[in-house]
Amino acid sequence: MKTAFAIAAHPDDIEFLCAGTLAKYAQRGDEVFNVVCTNGDMGHVEIPPAELAEIRTQEATAAAETVGAQIKLLGEPDEWLFHDKRTRLLMIDAIRWANPDVIITHSPADYHADHRVCSEMVFAASFLSTVPHIESEHPAQDHVAALVYMDTVAAANFIPEVYVDITDTYELKKQALLCHQSQVKWLQDHDNIDVVDFIEAVARTRGLQCGVKYAEGFQVAKIWPRLRPERLLP
Amino acid sequence: MKTAFAIAAHPDDIEFLCAGTLAKYAQRGDEVFNVVCTNGDMGHVEIPPAELAEIRTQEATAAAETVGAQIKLLGEPDEWLFHDKRTRLLMIDAIRWANPDVIITHSPADYHADHRVCSEMVFAASFLSTVPHIESEHPAQDHVAALVYMDTVAAANFIPEVYVDITDTYELKKQALLCHQSQVKWLQDHDNIDVVDFIEAVARTRGLQCGVKYAEGFQVAKIWPRLRPERLLP
Amino acid sequence: MKTAFAIAAHPDDIEFLCAGTLAKYAQRGDEVFNVVCTNGDMGHVEIPPAELAEIRTQEATAAAETVGAQIKLLGEPDEWLFHDKRTRLLMIDAIRWANPDVIITHSPADYHADHRVCSEMVFAASFLSTVPHIESEHPAQDHVAALVYMDTVAAANFIPEVYVDITDTYELKKQALLCHQSQVKWLQDHDNIDVVDFIEAVARTRGLQCGVKYAEGFQVAKIWPRLRPERLLP
Amino acid sequence: MKTAFAIAAHPDDIEFLCAGTLAKYAQRGDEVFNVVCTNGDMGHVEIPPAELAEIRTQEATAAAETVGAQIKLLGEPDEWLFHDKRTRLLMIDAIRWANPDVIITHSPADYHADHRVCSEMVFAASFLSTVPHIESEHPAQDHVAALVYMDTVAAANFIPEVYVDITDTYELKKQALLCHQSQVKWLQDHDNIDVVDFIEAVARTRGLQCGVKYAEGFQVAKIWPRLRPERLLP
Amino acid sequence: MKTAFAIAAHPDDIEFLCAGTLAKYAQRGDEVFNVVCTNGDMGHVEIPPAELAEIRTQEATAAAETVGAQIKLLGEPDEWLFHDKRTRLLMIDAIRWANPDVIITHSPADYHADHRVCSEMVFAASFLSTVPHIESEHPAQDHVAALVYMDTVAAANFIPEVYVDITDTYELKKQALLCHQSQVKWLQDHDNIDVVDFIEAVARTRGLQCGVKYAEGFQVAKIWPRLRPERLLP
Amino acid sequence: MKTAFAIAAHPDDIEFLCAGTLAKYAQRGDEVFNVVCTNGDMGHVEIPPAELAEIRTQEATAAAETVGAQIKLLGEPDEWLFHDKRTRLLMIDAIRWANPDVIITHSPADYHADHRVCSEMVFAASFLSTVPHIESEHPAQDHVAALVYMDTVAAANFIPEVYVDITDTYELKKQALLCHQSQVKWLQDHDNIDVVDFIEAVARTRGLQCGVKYAEGFQVAKIWPRLRPERLLP
Repeated sequence: MKTAFAIAAHPDDIEFLCAGTLAKYAQRGDEVFNVVCTNGDMGHVEIPPAELAEIRTQEATAAAETVGAQIKLLGEPDEWLFHDKRTRLLMIDAIRWANPDVIITHSPADYHADHRVCSEMVFAASFLSTVPHIESEHPAQDHVAALVYMDTVAAANFIPEVYVDITDTYELKKQALLCHQSQVKWLQDHDNIDVVDFIEAVARTRGLQCGVKYAEGFQVAKIWPRLRPERLLP
Repeated sequence: MKTAFAIAAHPDDIEFLCAGTLAKYAQRGDEVFNVVCTNGDMGHVEIPPAELAEIRTQEATAAAETVGAQIKLLGEPDEWLFHDKRTRLLMIDAIRWANPDVIITHSPADYHADHRVCSEMVFAASFLSTVPHIESEHPAQDHVAALVYMDTVAAANFIPEVYVDITDTYELKKQALLCHQSQVKWLQDHDNIDVVDFIEAVARTRGLQCGVKYAEGFQVAKIWPRLRPERLLP
Repeated sequence: MKTAFAIAAHPDDIEFLCAGTLAKYAQRGDEVFNVVCTNGDMGHVEIPPAELAEIRTQEATAAAETVGAQIKLLGEPDEWLFHDKRTRLLMIDAIRWANPDVIITHSPADYHADHRVCSEMVFAASFLSTVPHIESEHPAQDHVAALVYMDTVAAANFIPEVYVDITDTYELKKQALLCHQSQVKWLQDHDNIDVVDFIEAVARTRGLQCGVKYAEGFQVAKIWPRLRPERLLP
Repeated sequence: MKTAFAIAAHPDDIEFLCAGTLAKYAQRGDEVFNVVCTNGDMGHVEIPPAELAEIRTQEATAAAETVGAQIKLLGEPDEWLFHDKRTRLLMIDAIRWANPDVIITHSPADYHADHRVCSEMVFAASFLSTVPHIESEHPAQDHVAALVYMDTVAAANFIPEVYVDITDTYELKKQALLCHQSQVKWLQDHDNIDVVDFIEAVARTRGLQCGVKYAEGFQVAKIWPRLRPERLLP
Repeated sequence: MKTAFAIAAHPDDIEFLCAGTLAKYAQRGDEVFNVVCTNGDMGHVEIPPAELAEIRTQEATAAAETVGAQIKLLGEPDEWLFHDKRTRLLMIDAIRWANPDVIITHSPADYHADHRVCSEMVFAASFLSTVPHIESEHPAQDHVAALVYMDTVAAANFIPEVYVDITDTYELKKQALLCHQSQVKWLQDHDNIDVVDFIEAVARTRGLQCGVKYAEGFQVAKIWPRLRPERLLP
Repeated sequence: MKTAFAIAAHPDDIEFLCAGTLAKYAQRGDEVFNVVCTNGDMGHVEIPPAELAEIRTQEATAAAETVGAQIKLLGEPDEWLFHDKRTRLLMIDAIRWANPDVIITHSPADYHADHRVCSEMVFAASFLSTVPHIESEHPAQDHVAALVYMDTVAAANFIPEVYVDITDTYELKKQALLCHQSQVKWLQDHDNIDVVDFIEAVARTRGLQCGVKYAEGFQVAKIWPRLRPERLLP
């Protein structure tokens, strides 16, 4: 049994980008942990930030449950994730909480500053989580976890190196995404996107590329000592 | 008014990869010319090659008509396109026939050897078509045409640099593709693909990337003297 | 009519890297806005910083006027531009001030730390400027602007994807650059460069590449939702 | 059970570049087939070509046996492998002979022209082997095999995307390599390399990168329809 | 005579990655300066941080002496190197202390956050060290130094552009590395590596690539005005 | 003393792309050999091919003499250079004729098919020239020469890794180029370029990049066993 850990910037990023894969891990018996860095409180026009943060925490929790993952929200301010000592230490402890074999996070070239900062911090923290003299709530890991980058939003500027067939978990992915009801309207209004249509197109295209109905695409972080001579994904 | 020229390996490649863009050229009044290098005679299990070559010529002609393009088939043997002097000269004359401002062809990294050979020959011929002492049926061009590479099949390993909004011509693209009736069953059997579903997923993903319903993606050949300080696509 | 927005680190960067293009936007009737992040006060041996900041503000203002652009200087300390919350918010408001369709900024791989930080902040702010709950002096944008990177200094390590023919505006670019009289001597002394000779060589080489007398080169940020199915440059 | 197929240019290339992986396939019960394109007759100063071709055939056969692979030598002239119709057809039939799920061949950027030509032909033939109207000795494949590129000689200019732990099969790889006794002296004289020292350094470095004693590195050909949503290597 | 300057994140990084080259500089009469950013105090399980910092300072000093370099330790906290104004100013002064012609530092893509931050700060400081109005202990440089990136740890994801033959200085490199006795056990325990075996494999592989017994690999920073029309390395 | 060898497709390519460097080799006492693959007979509208071939042979000979190089023309048909056994053997013998330490040839991504074919053949032949059983007029080399790619025409899509300061030999380069009088008018008419203006812009831009008046840019072929731990260029 393996332990998989997904860490993303906003409450719905995991559902957009790797929930089909997480569900597949869970279905084969691996443990799955999710961490969301920010509270997502900027993600709406009408709902005030404080109220929205509450709503989105519940949405993210429901979504994680849908795919079979445990979840933790770090509650950092949405749109203002910065890579400082305090936040990096939060990341380190989040990784220690899950004690994963594999970490999945944003591509360092994704579309939003919070995504890039998250990715950069996870890169840093995935090594530091093993350093014993760095103290945090949970004990230091005794191994460095492997590191995998998930697709970018809209699959822009991203060539997958590894594909996961999510045909059997695509419905769970869709259900998990639809847990984020506060976002459905906002994304329609702010970015003119229908979320189901959005993930359908990307999952179909990634699927066409590797010969299945639906797929998610990933890149392996080519960084010592995070590389492994085995498949990291289900 | 401009003259656009698409040249591809097999009778249905243009429809898969750039017919929405060609239709858009045509609709705004540009002249559009298509050339197909091979006769496509290997593209079926049951229909014998010679018969299939006939059928596919008619299909390609109907498809070109659908988007408003003139067409010429070079009749080279399907699956066996090679870059020799005779075939390069065919390419040169094909380009001179259209006398284009812009040439669209396969990416040099596409999935099929015929596509790569086509791309490499078009690269060579797009310069040689202007050399006056190289004689062929049509006169030498007095300018070097710009060169653009279309998306790969299944959008694999291809980062577009230029997008064309084909929302208004997507139906024409689909109709043009469906002119290739001999291929619908073959592609289902040989490659397990539903052609309409296939182009839909890719056009939607390329559309998501640039903020429209449907799009096609392209790269500009960064090769002197084929670069231009202006948009080459509609 | 479009609105173009150039944002750079130091008072003369815009003139070096994209003023020919800005003049072209202005000449065809588009609105052009410039923002300079730092006060440029470190850019001289003999002139004291405070005095130099004054001089360079005037020089930048005159240069912007030359190409037909409005200008705003953020006054950050030269050589010490950092990506923190305060400065990112300045960027967000600067973008909202111009409310652009297209943003032009430094390549993330340019030669100076201030250039790279500026580029990274513009990437972040170009999305955040549309988030309604982020408050600043000017109202949130109702659309995400497209994002374009200009050439690096000396054209080093930069492959343009889009060229702009600046043959007709090259003299304006040169005049605008020469507004920065405080820099002419400094650049000769500090970096051993004659500014006119410098831009001439680069503009000629970029021109040769795309078949005109003078050109400027750009790359499109391949980031959702900043990609567009149309030409972003004049 | 899977079928793996390695195809390389010269009689000792497979041992240098992927024999540890082939042995691992074989040990877990997969079928392994090797094809060598040339007769290797140019690989010596003193042994005359015709005699050397005989010797190397025996050496390659012994090496294949060592790792548990069946082998076939196409007998093309060493140093003169060209991509023409006749040779491509040989490749197609070689693939059909093995009817593999996975094909391993040279990187298209490897150091020797024969390696590059082999790689390019395998790319072409791995699709054409499925076309029913292309006739050869063995029947057409009913599926397109996945395609994987092995490391370059000396690991030059190659970033592995997938690693195989060959710690348990490293001795077999070494024994298989040492079957090529005619080459030991030639490589020492012509290229100043001690073959065991050579593969040791590379296998150790690839091992360090992925956290094991010895490893071999590979890249996946990102080409439709050869991509798979599963690990292709043991 | 030239002045070479190596700057790295932790007390043993220089020995792992470029000490053979530094010894070669020294042996031909060039001046060599080393700077270590952090105190390395996190690098052990049992030795407490404060004590370890002392030990590692002595180890680094002995190692520098071994290759013939002067050394300075900036004493920043291990694992927590950040790019802020204070630390960048330390970097600027460190460069001014050495007043180098060539700066060698970590690749911006290396495996540890401290390495990446060091690389990014050196990029910034290598230009700012020449700005006269930035005051620090040592006087401003009158020229911008060339900038070179050393190999990554385990040679992962790094294609050298320049090689240095360290066959004659490999023993010195090994001796210098073994000065870091506190790390030998830690690296065995924490990362399961035998340090001598580690550098041997990498130096042999880099040596194979360029035709010598042992080599170190480097990339040149392709950034104006740090490029030079001459070899920067010994 | 070293032996440098430049091999290009057409009679004036060497002068456009590396003559400043060749003159520098010659001035410091190295031996320099040039080979031109084609007879250049297609390079004019009015002068008939046979006559032009004669003229261009004399022009190339005069140009080589200007920079201090010996020259040999292979006389292949202009615009129709193909990579077959006969032509590869010509290449092998041309390399053996010069017996070089360093080979300079076209980038594999240059603008003309003849340039790309030349580059590919030189890659192949630079290894095969050392194989003793391949017989040609001159004896086999006893070492594999290093391989360097020169800039592309118009510096398009090319990032130099190595620069050569040609300030002192720029006038010789210009004189050598002007030996090709038959081309001055043709290039003006066919490609609208003033040859002196053309090389001036590129040499100035490459010079700006590395801090000198005039420079030429190169890339090192990262291919074993052609890499060297030393500077290959003057």
